[in-house]
Amino acid sequence: MYTIDSIQDIQDMARGAVLLGTGGGGDPYVGELFVHEQIRKGHYPTVISSGELDEDAFVVSIAGIGAPTVILEHLVSEKTLLQLLARAEIFYGRRIDALISAEIGGANSMFPLALSAISGVPVLDADGVGRAVPQLEMTTFSIYGVRATPCILMDDSGNFVNVETSSDRMAEDICRVVTGAMGAMAFSAIYPMSGKQAQDCAVQDTLSQTLEIGRAIRRGREGAGDVFEPLLAYLNSWEGRIARIIFDGKITDVTHETRDGWHWGLATMCGIDDPAQQCTVEIRNEFIVARVNGRTATVVPDLITILDRESGEPMTGEMLAYGQRVKVLGYSADPMLRRPESLEVLGPRMFGLDEDFQPIESL
Amino acid sequence: MYTIDSIQDIQDMARGAVLLGTGGGGDPYVGELFVHEQIRKGHYPTVISSGELDEDAFVVSIAGIGAPTVILEHLVSEKTLLQLLARAEIFYGRRIDALISAEIGGANSMFPLALSAISGVPVLDADGVGRAVPQLEMTTFSIYGVRATPCILMDDSGNFVNVETSSDRMAEDICRVVTGAMGAMAFSAIYPMSGKQAQDCAVQDTLSQTLEIGRAIRRGREGAGDVFEPLLAYLNSWEGRIARIIFDGKITDVTHETRDGWHWGLATMCGIDDPAQQCTVEIRNEFIVARVNGRTATVVPDLITILDRESGEPMTGEMLAYGQRVKVLGYSADPMLRRPESLEVLGPRMFGLDEDFQPIESL
Repeated sequence: MYTIDSIQDIQDMARGAVLLGTGGGGDPYVGELFVHEQIRKGHYPTVISSGELDEDAFVVSIAGIGAPTVILEHLVSEKTLLQLLARAEIFYGRRIDALISAEIGGANSMFPLALSAISGVPVLDADGVGRAVPQLEMTTFSIYGVRATPCILMDDSGNFVNVETSSDRMAEDICRVVTGAMGAMAFSAIYPMSGKQAQDCAVQDTLSQTLEIGRAIRRGREGAGDVFEPLLAYLNSWEGRIARIIFDGKITDVTHETRDGWHWGLATMCGIDDPAQQCTVEIRNEFIVARVNGRTATVVPDLITILDRESGEPMTGEMLAYGQRVKVLGYSADPMLRRPESLEVLGPRMFGLDEDFQPIESL
Repeated sequence: MYTIDSIQDIQDMARGAVLLGTGGGGDPYVGELFVHEQIRKGHYPTVISSGELDEDAFVVSIAGIGAPTVILEHLVSEKTLLQLLARAEIFYGRRIDALISAEIGGANSMFPLALSAISGVPVLDADGVGRAVPQLEMTTFSIYGVRATPCILMDDSGNFVNVETSSDRMAEDICRVVTGAMGAMAFSAIYPMSGKQAQDCAVQDTLSQTLEIGRAIRRGREGAGDVFEPLLAYLNSWEGRIARIIFDGKITDVTHETRDGWHWGLATMCGIDDPAQQCTVEIRNEFIVARVNGRTATVVPDLITILDRESGEPMTGEMLAYGQRVKVLGYSADPMLRRPESLEVLGPRMFGLDEDFQPIESL
């Protein structure tokens, strides 16, 4: 168990969460500000590893659900988060021993920390996917048998909805429309699970990973050498995972479209040194496939991040604009995400791509 | 208390419910068939008056929520209705002593009877509005202080949603979108209330009214005299309410449009004897205003029904077509609906009309 008492740490974590958000997941900035404020007041989030948890402990995910464009501007209400926790404890008739992030990429990295700071309930150093995903059933929790529901949704007006569905896909459908009626953003207590399930079904150590990624980017920026060197060294230090810069270029075109509740887009880059080289990144909320000169270089669930070429700052899909000089990073997904049962839920075809998954190592 | 053991009675009730549906409310036919089948098996619905209820009895409304076009074709599942009742009793931690219809007009007249037949829980001879209305907060329950939520929604796939909102208007918004995600139709246990509240906040004797209306139409049809005479005599026998035929004509034009989740339309008729006479009826799910030669003759919440001129059959908005010979009936709403606090929720302006309520007696 450790306590986060440093604003610097939260800043680093938020930056790391943007990287793991692979262009989507919602900007963690508003949640980050809320946690800053709590740390200033001496209310510190605490983090524990899944191994420290009793097998019969009771864990729930705390997640914001909604449109990234609204999550970005929606201030976090202390009252709503505490009411959500109280409601969940009344509903289950027991104390919640730990919180867990449903997805570590983007805004949902911060909300469990925010609730931990004000409630004292620790956050697990783990999450449900190790990146960001567009739908709530796209988690290792769901893939390995934890049900998304009962899902308790709450908004800042005190509206409360409890959803119990026969499938996690249906939970996604219902939560999405309820969130729409609640003003495009709600907080949820979702994926109730035991300590044993958190140990077996979660992607581990991902909250620490956000911190270390943020630190590595900061070190790269403050150091004298290649700004990306500490980041690549850190990412490659994970057993069985590799990270590489798959393109170094300048954005020559970017399209954005919001359709069917998704953010669709395409970013096109040409090479810095050789403008004949081309890279495209398809956006469907997250960056789902990067192609270099027409050939797939990284594809979901492997991670694709676009970073500012000078500062190493990871960028969300909405931030991309003509003329930006960027590097495109490819990173192996956690091995849990590459298993056949995971690829059925998280593979390229689930995002509308007409190709099978190929690991970045083979591309 | 009485038991409904006659298929004829259910047929009469369904016909009466269409009349009180004022063109909307959903066709009760599918619910009617379900109750027929139960009566054939010897499972009879029971009806009690609110006065027979203990003040601290526990009552909930059972309502179908969804698109009338779907409700019309959606078979009633015994399993779903029983699960809904069981879920509600578990949720509240107590036995449900009686069911009540949220709106007696249209399909929601039949669903409480259906559940009564299979569960033995009696149905109150009362409802929440004495007609049909397009939104779930448009009830005397809501106007007089019974909250629509907790509202338990259930579909035939076993999906279950519990909604608790800060306003009944918000309950409508959330239930509507959840119902959409559930396939455009769900069953709900809504408006939990005490026996005292059912006595004070409901429109009384409306289930009996559907039966008597249906009988009067049948008597008129089977008799030798004016087909409408028994119906008008019955409706006018209610203290403080008047019914009159406001137009006798032929449909010359009818428009239908489904927009923003509403059924919009306009029926235009010319006189049978004098084709220069004109009547229009505006449809917004229900018939909301009838104008004769441009002057308002009946307006919500007073009831407007269009009936076949020969058979006295009441027609829903969807049934109207060019060339039909019809009579337009205007009928005073229950006095509860005409109070100032009711008109704020149920008055013409709530349906987008630019006029104040005027009782049919003054028109």
